[in-house]
Amino acid sequence: MNVSPAAERLRYILNEDDDMPTPTLFTEMDTLQREGGELEWKESARWVKFEEKVEEGGERWSKPHVSTLSLHSLFELRTCLQTGTVLLDLEGYSLPQIIEEGMISPELRDKISFVLLRKHRHQTKKPIHRSLADIGKSTSSSSECPAIGNDYSRSMNDIADSPSSDQLRNKFMKKIPRDAEASNVLVGEVDFLSKPFVAFVRLAQATTLGGLTEVPVPTRFLFILLGPHGKAKSYNEIGRAIATLMVDDLFSDVAYKARDREDLIAGIDEFLDEVIVLPPGEWDPKIRIEPPKKVPTADKRKSVFSLNELGQGNGAAGGGGGQSEDEEMPFCGGLYLDIKRKLPWVPSDIYEGFHLQSISAVLFIYLGCITNAITFGGLLGDATDNYQGVMESFLGTALAGSVFCLFSGQPLIILSSTGPILIFEKLLFEFSKSNGIDYMELRLWIGMHSCLQCFILVATDASFIIKYMTRFTEEGFSSLISFIFISDAIKKMVGSFKYYPINTDFKPDYVTTYKCECLAPDLSEFTPWLRRSQSNVTGLDWSQLSKKECLKYGGSLVGNTCKFVPDLALISFILFFGTYSMTVSLKKFKSSRYFPTKLRKLISDFSIFMSIMTFVGLDMLLGLKTPKLIVPTEFKPTRPGRGWLVMPFGKNPWWVYVASSVPALLVTILIFMDQQISAVIVNRKENKLKKGCGYHLDLFWVGVLMAVCSFLGLPWYVAATVISIAHIDSLKMESESSAPGEQPQFLGVREQRMTGILVFALTGVSIFLAPVLKYIPMPVLYGVFLYMGVASLSGIQFWDRIKLYMMPSKHQPDFPYLRHVPLRKVHLFTLVQIACLAVLWTLKSTFLAIIFPVMILGLMVVRKMLDMVFSQHDLAWIDDLLPGKDKKKKKDDDKKKGKEKKKPKLDDSEEEVRNSSFCCPPQ
Amino acid sequence: MNVSPAAERLRYILNEDDDMPTPTLFTEMDTLQREGGELEWKESARWVKFEEKVEEGGERWSKPHVSTLSLHSLFELRTCLQTGTVLLDLEGYSLPQIIEEGMISPELRDKISFVLLRKHRHQTKKPIHRSLADIGKSTSSSSECPAIGNDYSRSMNDIADSPSSDQLRNKFMKKIPRDAEASNVLVGEVDFLSKPFVAFVRLAQATTLGGLTEVPVPTRFLFILLGPHGKAKSYNEIGRAIATLMVDDLFSDVAYKARDREDLIAGIDEFLDEVIVLPPGEWDPKIRIEPPKKVPTADKRKSVFSLNELGQGNGAAGGGGGQSEDEEMPFCGGLYLDIKRKLPWVPSDIYEGFHLQSISAVLFIYLGCITNAITFGGLLGDATDNYQGVMESFLGTALAGSVFCLFSGQPLIILSSTGPILIFEKLLFEFSKSNGIDYMELRLWIGMHSCLQCFILVATDASFIIKYMTRFTEEGFSSLISFIFISDAIKKMVGSFKYYPINTDFKPDYVTTYKCECLAPDLSEFTPWLRRSQSNVTGLDWSQLSKKECLKYGGSLVGNTCKFVPDLALISFILFFGTYSMTVSLKKFKSSRYFPTKLRKLISDFSIFMSIMTFVGLDMLLGLKTPKLIVPTEFKPTRPGRGWLVMPFGKNPWWVYVASSVPALLVTILIFMDQQISAVIVNRKENKLKKGCGYHLDLFWVGVLMAVCSFLGLPWYVAATVISIAHIDSLKMESESSAPGEQPQFLGVREQRMTGILVFALTGVSIFLAPVLKYIPMPVLYGVFLYMGVASLSGIQFWDRIKLYMMPSKHQPDFPYLRHVPLRKVHLFTLVQIACLAVLWTLKSTFLAIIFPVMILGLMVVRKMLDMVFSQHDLAWIDDLLPGKDKKKKKDDDKKKGKEKKKPKLDDSEEEVRNSSFCCPPQ
Repeated sequence: MNVSPAAERLRYILNEDDDMPTPTLFTEMDTLQREGGELEWKESARWVKFEEKVEEGGERWSKPHVSTLSLHSLFELRTCLQTGTVLLDLEGYSLPQIIEEGMISPELRDKISFVLLRKHRHQTKKPIHRSLADIGKSTSSSSECPAIGNDYSRSMNDIADSPSSDQLRNKFMKKIPRDAEASNVLVGEVDFLSKPFVAFVRLAQATTLGGLTEVPVPTRFLFILLGPHGKAKSYNEIGRAIATLMVDDLFSDVAYKARDREDLIAGIDEFLDEVIVLPPGEWDPKIRIEPPKKVPTADKRKSVFSLNELGQGNGAAGGGGGQSEDEEMPFCGGLYLDIKRKLPWVPSDIYEGFHLQSISAVLFIYLGCITNAITFGGLLGDATDNYQGVMESFLGTALAGSVFCLFSGQPLIILSSTGPILIFEKLLFEFSKSNGIDYMELRLWIGMHSCLQCFILVATDASFIIKYMTRFTEEGFSSLISFIFISDAIKKMVGSFKYYPINTDFKPDYVTTYKCECLAPDLSEFTPWLRRSQSNVTGLDWSQLSKKECLKYGGSLVGNTCKFVPDLALISFILFFGTYSMTVSLKKFKSSRYFPTKLRKLISDFSIFMSIMTFVGLDMLLGLKTPKLIVPTEFKPTRPGRGWLVMPFGKNPWWVYVASSVPALLVTILIFMDQQISAVIVNRKENKLKKGCGYHLDLFWVGVLMAVCSFLGLPWYVAATVISIAHIDSLKMESESSAPGEQPQFLGVREQRMTGILVFALTGVSIFLAPVLKYIPMPVLYGVFLYMGVASLSGIQFWDRIKLYMMPSKHQPDFPYLRHVPLRKVHLFTLVQIACLAVLWTLKSTFLAIIFPVMILGLMVVRKMLDMVFSQHDLAWIDDLLPGKDKKKKKDDDKKKGKEKKKPKLDDSEEEVRNSSFCCPPQ
Repeated sequence: MNVSPAAERLRYILNEDDDMPTPTLFTEMDTLQREGGELEWKESARWVKFEEKVEEGGERWSKPHVSTLSLHSLFELRTCLQTGTVLLDLEGYSLPQIIEEGMISPELRDKISFVLLRKHRHQTKKPIHRSLADIGKSTSSSSECPAIGNDYSRSMNDIADSPSSDQLRNKFMKKIPRDAEASNVLVGEVDFLSKPFVAFVRLAQATTLGGLTEVPVPTRFLFILLGPHGKAKSYNEIGRAIATLMVDDLFSDVAYKARDREDLIAGIDEFLDEVIVLPPGEWDPKIRIEPPKKVPTADKRKSVFSLNELGQGNGAAGGGGGQSEDEEMPFCGGLYLDIKRKLPWVPSDIYEGFHLQSISAVLFIYLGCITNAITFGGLLGDATDNYQGVMESFLGTALAGSVFCLFSGQPLIILSSTGPILIFEKLLFEFSKSNGIDYMELRLWIGMHSCLQCFILVATDASFIIKYMTRFTEEGFSSLISFIFISDAIKKMVGSFKYYPINTDFKPDYVTTYKCECLAPDLSEFTPWLRRSQSNVTGLDWSQLSKKECLKYGGSLVGNTCKFVPDLALISFILFFGTYSMTVSLKKFKSSRYFPTKLRKLISDFSIFMSIMTFVGLDMLLGLKTPKLIVPTEFKPTRPGRGWLVMPFGKNPWWVYVASSVPALLVTILIFMDQQISAVIVNRKENKLKKGCGYHLDLFWVGVLMAVCSFLGLPWYVAATVISIAHIDSLKMESESSAPGEQPQFLGVREQRMTGILVFALTGVSIFLAPVLKYIPMPVLYGVFLYMGVASLSGIQFWDRIKLYMMPSKHQPDFPYLRHVPLRKVHLFTLVQIACLAVLWTLKSTFLAIIFPVMILGLMVVRKMLDMVFSQHDLAWIDDLLPGKDKKKKKDDDKKKGKEKKKPKLDDSEEEVRNSSFCCPPQ
């Protein structure tokens, strides 16, 4: 690159004091106007980063927008600076002083001073208030007549050197950085000038020049443009041009460090060189351009002018800091490193939990957890003849969950019973029963063996396998789990139509013909034994018995309504679908225009809670007997015969203790895969977690809890994907935007242990909450489940790619991978993923469901084979590269002089969109 | 304005052949690339109006976007044109010829020719297809080896002078205007040049240069930039710059008419002068800017250079064509003018109806009409003791509607019974009954008087009053009608909860205790007469009777289920809400990304039909006895005693014939107001109606139909606001966008008579459609009504302003009036409107409802009073000005040298957003 003289100048001055950052500039532009025969400066626009214009008629600020300038005005500004007065590092503590000292045209000085010292009217002041106040003042203070002397002193008074109360009261101040200084642009038409008067003033010290600026920010720069009548529009545009320049990161640096006029002009030239030009035929200049989501930092532009340019430039282009993480670590001590990494965060893990958002997260996840506990508890009870039931499920969830949240490496993970474990328990129970082996003791030994095996996996750093879990595997797994969630929720809903059948033939007019009667059994047909047992009910009034009683006492139900239940199925559907769609709508409410941002955020955060409350309320209002959430109210094992502790010896032969290590191996693999994949999903780079992960520590505690739960006869627990994602989603943080127009950025997740602990503490005391919980209808909770499933699908690239099938290519969103990978390859990749999921879904429905998490290994194998079908370039964009290939590719690239590699490197913004799956490398 | 030399040049050349418009240019940019050791030109971008880039990796076209250029490349281009070869009006019929003739550097000519004649690869050709085709070809035709001779001839062959089949097959052709010519930009790096070679060629005749362009469009311009290696990015940017210039309306004019190099450079200078500049710190150049909704026409820019600039400029700034319509017309002959205006449109009124969209409109409006006919028919039947019932309602709707649609001034208006008429009939019937006057005869006389009065109103051009109906009145009225629609729909829905009460205490377990039995009356208690009448039923099996029969025969219903109906209320709610929300979702589907645009439009157009079908299907599937749409199946008057014709004389004393003119006056005012306000709403400027309105003609036919309906004893009909709006909404047309990236524009409404006629013809034959219609549940139709009400509210400024109350000012949309009127004034205006509506709503619920349309006069008075509270400037933005004030203001403005007036005049785009309410002035 050949260096222009302007660049040479900039390079010199920008390197002068490289260590001292220049303050942020707030720019205000005031124009001279005649209001009721009196001249005054009226604020017409301001810039923190983007432009806000005063809407004259509307008496309001416009929305912040990108300043669109005309090229003409920039060139005129350049000429202005070339010919006008430039005063750098002027000493002056008040506006009169500056004017006296600085202005070099003595014959015009008085007139210009007079104009410059006119009162400043800012947009904050309501015109009506002001005129009323003025009327009041005019009697006590100086008169309102336009005599020069009077006005001058009044204006002098107005332009004081301490901030006025109006300034201090201005709420806009909080949008301006603390260290900010002001630059004031003053443009106007006057009648005493024949050619424009231009002055660019930099003060030696930033000084509060009274009411000059709308906020109490000291002024550092002044740009004055006064000219003859007739070109107001042109002056205005020049004023906007310099104002935009002053808030430009690079030009403001130049302005602070400029030694002379030429430096400033070099700054304009550099600005012009970087400017983006829109053709007049393709854009309407009247459209206000919304600020972009992200603005490139000026550092790149600045780096061109830094002296050690070459060295730094190469460094940046080479391997970033991120690459170093990929280094091979010794395969041991992962647990130690995990603990070392997590220990410093312990205090913040506690205090960062105290936030309003946590409340909504706790309520949401709590409801999810207890619904899950009840569902799985019920199923486990059926499967194990109540050896483990709802009570055990609650206790186990509370115990395992809270211990894990207290000590684990990733406390955002929520533990829960999962499908594969349930199937394992079922098979195990049947096996024990048919072989006369004590189930609880066998289970204890399996748990102990499994715990031991987990420890071995931890000690050998076996979690390295997750390196091979690319987006393909990870998204495949989480989509599948989400689909299962959704299909379960819908199945349960459909089930209520079976449980409460609707009498579709009901004719309102024939209400008289509908009945269901309990008929006494014809005792004569029964055996004497039966007759004896029934003898105590012969005295019953059969017609008064309820359905259950009737069947219990051997009666038979006769009638055309017996098998129908009115209204319950339909109201269940309304509750289910209502909860789901209200939650979705309220979540979306955040991006609506109504109500202040904070309130909207609150509504969005508490959307699930509000939906649940609404439909619980509706259900109570109607008073229908919908199925409700019933939690156990007494603290005792579900099966009367068992105690709270399982003894390891005495009931089974000795060889069972040893042989149980074989099924334990299956459980271990099962738990390992389930746990680690969920952990990978939680630790996704997209979530911007700051406290790092702890795969080894997590697994360690899962192992410990295995053993503990086995001793207590409680179910086994492992990370639950969908609920963990919901947990993270409900704890997401966004930046409060600072400069007007800047978009809020996703900052990360509120990483702490408090929400998890609270959720499981609440689960533990649910026994006492039963009187409250019994008002919650189950369909409402199924609606919440449906929402969880759907929400965890959103933001998954796989899901986005499925949607692409239904979009004509010209309507497809501008995903980065679509720019770089042919659509048919993207479709092929998606198709492979869909096929894999279809196979998994089918297997899941068979007895193979028990090895379901193991099948994820199959996904990883498929992914490995894809390396043969797709180019590494394509895979790098759609998926992530496998670790081995990555290195190989790196070497290839180095050989090929990095042509291919350079492209993604240059596209910083795109690079960031492609997220790798690890928050931290498994050591 | 001082004229620069560049402008002087442009002014000269652009005025040369002002009468001949230049063709549209399609620009294609090809870059030189080495593919497998062979050089070839690869298409990298194209422009019809906006830029479409080839996504290299993605092998696809990017979305059309605004070309963002760097200032640097524009200046480099300027230099290129200053120093490079410029050949204007070159004769040449093939690329080799042009090269031979044109290129002036003989030593490089061969090498450059060789490069330029390389094969062109366009994005339409899939690389895989091509290479396969090539493999096939290579055996039969020339070899693939890179020998120069061979390649040259092969390329020569490729660059033929007739369009290739690939070109002809290209579907993109339909996006390019028919008269278009091509400009080809060729940029590339070569190794034999030490400094760039630049050529700008304009051919004397546009010529098809074989495979040069991807579409069979003849080439007129060629821009060639070849240069040494290492600056590909810079060449690319220069290529993009000239390509963008070539599609600029003004520069392409210059390019066509340029006499020499200097003219072209003047064109660039003009372009640079108009360019819009984005500061580098506020915008990321990587963001592709979506094409704006509307682009300013180049005419304004061009007009600066036209010779008769001053004359034209003043003319445009003065009064536009729209103003002339405001001239005072003589207050007579309005009917004649209406007919004169509508007559030429009669043929198009017929043939424009043949469109797919019409089908959906007919189905939608038909269902709305018959639901309305049934509802009002039922109510009228109750009110008039079945003198007018559902049958009369159907017949009247069909008759009045079809006659009106055939002959009226505005066939988009749908006639229907309205609330005020219903109340009038009710009061009239009660009056006749209590005073022994024959109702039908009295009604006939009122109808005749009213018809006469309508004729008088038509003859005196009384419709001038609608001039005073500003947005305030119009939107107030239509909002009120919409609210009534919405509240009626909801009321009917809530009604079904009363009609089918839910047994909320139902306990499924106690199903045995629920029954409802018909008990025979205790005959001994009755009088002998009753006993006699009952005697024939004593033999009945009471327990087998239905509810109705039981009550009919005097039995009593005993039991706890008698007053409850299961499921029907809830399923009604599901059908109602489902229809509404599915329609809303499907309507929104038009703006989704899924499926091709045409299919989406179809789905959106038929959204109501699809929703109805879906929920009718659901209802049939469930088979519940929901209330269905029952239309009369026999053609006979509802009340057995009456015939189809009412005789004017004989039943009432003579004075009644005269006195009936007094109530007729009320009816006339009622009809006049209702009819004309609805017509004003239909004729809104927003709807962009092209065939003009016909207030007088409309009123004439309403009058005629009054008389006819009175003779036949049918209800009276008048324009129905909400259904008419729905009719218009379902007939809206949008432009099929031509250039890629151009937004579809709202073109207007499919104005024709066919849909209306069909709707009412269908209504007439509904008797025969009864077997189909009986499957439609009423709740589904109430859902349609709810949708109609809500949809007619959207797009109403009043409604937008109500929403503003709930938005913090910084989130408010950028409505033009908010820029010019202080928010508190906007809020005050809205508040006045809300207060007016609240008063009207309250009155509507009392007996005053009969004079409801007359109360609209009250709205107009309130609006008149607002002139005292608000400034004319504010009212001009929020509302429209009243005609008198408008003129006055005009005079004021003229006095004030039009300062205030000039502002809105300059803002063309904003001006258009402010719509006045008339499509044409009432003469």
